[in-house]
Amino acid sequence: MTRPRVVIVGGGFGGLAAARRLARAPVDVLLIDAENHHCFQPLLYQAATAALAPSEIAWPIRHVLRGQANATVLMATVLAVDADRQTVTSSAGEFAYDFLMLSTGSTHSYFGHDAWERHAPSLKTIADAIAIRSRTLKAFERAEAAEDPEERARLLTFAIIGGGPTGVELAGALAELARRTLPPEFRRSNPARARILLVEAGLRLLPSFPNRLSEVARRSLIRRGVEVLTGTKVEDVRDGVIVADGRQIDVGGAIVWAAGVRSSPAGRWLDAPRDHSGRTRVEPNLAAPGRPNVFVIGDAAAVVGPDGRQAPGLAPAAKQMGAYVARVIRARLEGRPEPAPFRYRDEGSLATIGRNAALVKIGPVSLTGFPGWVFWSAAHIYFLIGARSRFFVAVSWAWSYVSFQRGARLITRA
Amino acid sequence: MTRPRVVIVGGGFGGLAAARRLARAPVDVLLIDAENHHCFQPLLYQAATAALAPSEIAWPIRHVLRGQANATVLMATVLAVDADRQTVTSSAGEFAYDFLMLSTGSTHSYFGHDAWERHAPSLKTIADAIAIRSRTLKAFERAEAAEDPEERARLLTFAIIGGGPTGVELAGALAELARRTLPPEFRRSNPARARILLVEAGLRLLPSFPNRLSEVARRSLIRRGVEVLTGTKVEDVRDGVIVADGRQIDVGGAIVWAAGVRSSPAGRWLDAPRDHSGRTRVEPNLAAPGRPNVFVIGDAAAVVGPDGRQAPGLAPAAKQMGAYVARVIRARLEGRPEPAPFRYRDEGSLATIGRNAALVKIGPVSLTGFPGWVFWSAAHIYFLIGARSRFFVAVSWAWSYVSFQRGARLITRA
Repeated sequence: MTRPRVVIVGGGFGGLAAARRLARAPVDVLLIDAENHHCFQPLLYQAATAALAPSEIAWPIRHVLRGQANATVLMATVLAVDADRQTVTSSAGEFAYDFLMLSTGSTHSYFGHDAWERHAPSLKTIADAIAIRSRTLKAFERAEAAEDPEERARLLTFAIIGGGPTGVELAGALAELARRTLPPEFRRSNPARARILLVEAGLRLLPSFPNRLSEVARRSLIRRGVEVLTGTKVEDVRDGVIVADGRQIDVGGAIVWAAGVRSSPAGRWLDAPRDHSGRTRVEPNLAAPGRPNVFVIGDAAAVVGPDGRQAPGLAPAAKQMGAYVARVIRARLEGRPEPAPFRYRDEGSLATIGRNAALVKIGPVSLTGFPGWVFWSAAHIYFLIGARSRFFVAVSWAWSYVSFQRGARLITRA
Repeated sequence: MTRPRVVIVGGGFGGLAAARRLARAPVDVLLIDAENHHCFQPLLYQAATAALAPSEIAWPIRHVLRGQANATVLMATVLAVDADRQTVTSSAGEFAYDFLMLSTGSTHSYFGHDAWERHAPSLKTIADAIAIRSRTLKAFERAEAAEDPEERARLLTFAIIGGGPTGVELAGALAELARRTLPPEFRRSNPARARILLVEAGLRLLPSFPNRLSEVARRSLIRRGVEVLTGTKVEDVRDGVIVADGRQIDVGGAIVWAAGVRSSPAGRWLDAPRDHSGRTRVEPNLAAPGRPNVFVIGDAAAVVGPDGRQAPGLAPAAKQMGAYVARVIRARLEGRPEPAPFRYRDEGSLATIGRNAALVKIGPVSLTGFPGWVFWSAAHIYFLIGARSRFFVAVSWAWSYVSFQRGARLITRA
């Protein structure tokens, strides 16, 4: 007898959590992802700033699931879903499903200005991180080779657009790279003179944190030499950034786009209703409307809980959704009633600014400065997958902390 | 008073050795390299087979020389040398020199069949290693997705052309990846069934080793499931390999070219006499003919010692030449007589086949099997640059030895 097949599209936090929770269920799990690896996105900014090697924060999905006998992993690009015939079409052929889970995540949005992407890449994948790392390190190399002081200053100007966690973390890490790591190695230019701008349209950084912590982050970044421009809308992005008052900032270093998020095309495959960011509006049990055996989770889903609050686009929310859908499927297979509607549990918010400085907000508790940073470090090591990564990342960080050096300063060519 | 300027082109083993030996000389050293990193080429095959991360075997050149106040490092591509005017033209402008050292290394040679390169990349740089790693891992992924058994077998066929140390080491590492690391993670295909061919035109592997050790290597590879085809000339390379007897081997996995070496264009810049591999024929003191202040070292130089033996294209030879030229320059600056002509000291030969198996030949001593492997591992860790790399590589290897896993199995997109 063939067992019901659960097809999971996407091996991010949500898809992996679902697959693992189905390990002992009487189903066959087929996980399809366009990449061969799961990427630990919360530390992607460290790969983009040469603090960690890409392989320290990304692992083959099939390696993560190697011990799970009922799980098959395929590297393939999903092209379409036929919900009537219950099939998924991919670059590796067509697969029938009994249950389908779409955990396809999100990509960046340039708010209709797609031409900006060439000048200001985003940070969503390992490939993005490697590209931003190369662009950044190359700027310092070019500044060292430049003869003209104006050209040198232009090459040492960096702009990060978007003051959410990714923008804040990137700005802090870049400031440390420029002011602490690189200076002893340059002779003709001074990397410590780099101008690092963090441009945010809203009135404060980190809007998901309490006001007080936003202010702590702002001050901490300024102390590290980051120019924080809040309330500053970006009008155009070319070889620099033009802001709302018409001011043009020439950027010869790198521009990174950390402002907009747009959901992946899962909703379009299903022809289901979507919100303004492209997220599929799902039922309280995370099923697509009218398709009780098709679930959309993580950044691809717009979920409003019984408390009226929308689940955020964060790793813990995706994990919780993945685990929830696994429970729904197991309940149906066993003929039990479905669990109560999905409700997002806030596990707190973390953001790091740099050495000895991070923000932690868990319920009524908030930590900043050194205690925040210790908590942040421990939490991230804990959530990494696999003993090897935990050990290597911990040792990488310890070594960097003592030496101010970074381990992965490679400029690689395509 | 300005100090004499020594321009070194190339931050490989020879160029770095020369720069370091000039640390206390009354000169300014300018080291120019097209890459930002020094690559530890003897372990490149481990990066190509996912055993080590690229950043574990490559370090920014300026980081290596950070403590040397008289050394400046520039990332730039050298385009020409004007030996009359004593200038080097590069993508970062023109630089005058008092002494010039060309340590530009070698690239691969397809013996006139440059069209083969697209199908059979070589392994000379970090970018090559990443490309070969992606191609190899993708083949296993495609085989897992394939439905047709013939197509699956084609995808699991790999060919390595050239039975020197690189070819032997790659074949051994690939066999371990296929037979030990990957099988528990695949469900539809069996990576252990991969066909791995090592094709060598000559009659034995590792011609620089004694006959007996060549035979040990051959047997050891066969035991690991590598098909060793010695005395087999390659006639054509396309989607497969056509060998001299007309046999065509379809290769859907990866073909790697480890057969030919051609020197880099240093000799052409100087318009100096070259040998058949493009190496500049230098004077006994490594100066270019008629240009006493221009030196060519490492793989770029054809050097015949007082004993009539030619220095091989190996890291120890390049290091010895770099150190030698630094001595020549210091002697001239101090008005002392030049040292005796360069003489290559044979420091022995090492090659690894895999877990618990390596060949060591140092003078009259030879080691094989486990003792050889322990010596090989210790020697390679010792020669890595920097305490951090030594520690991380040692721990990576220890972890892989115990777990059979590999730490850097990333398929990255350009």
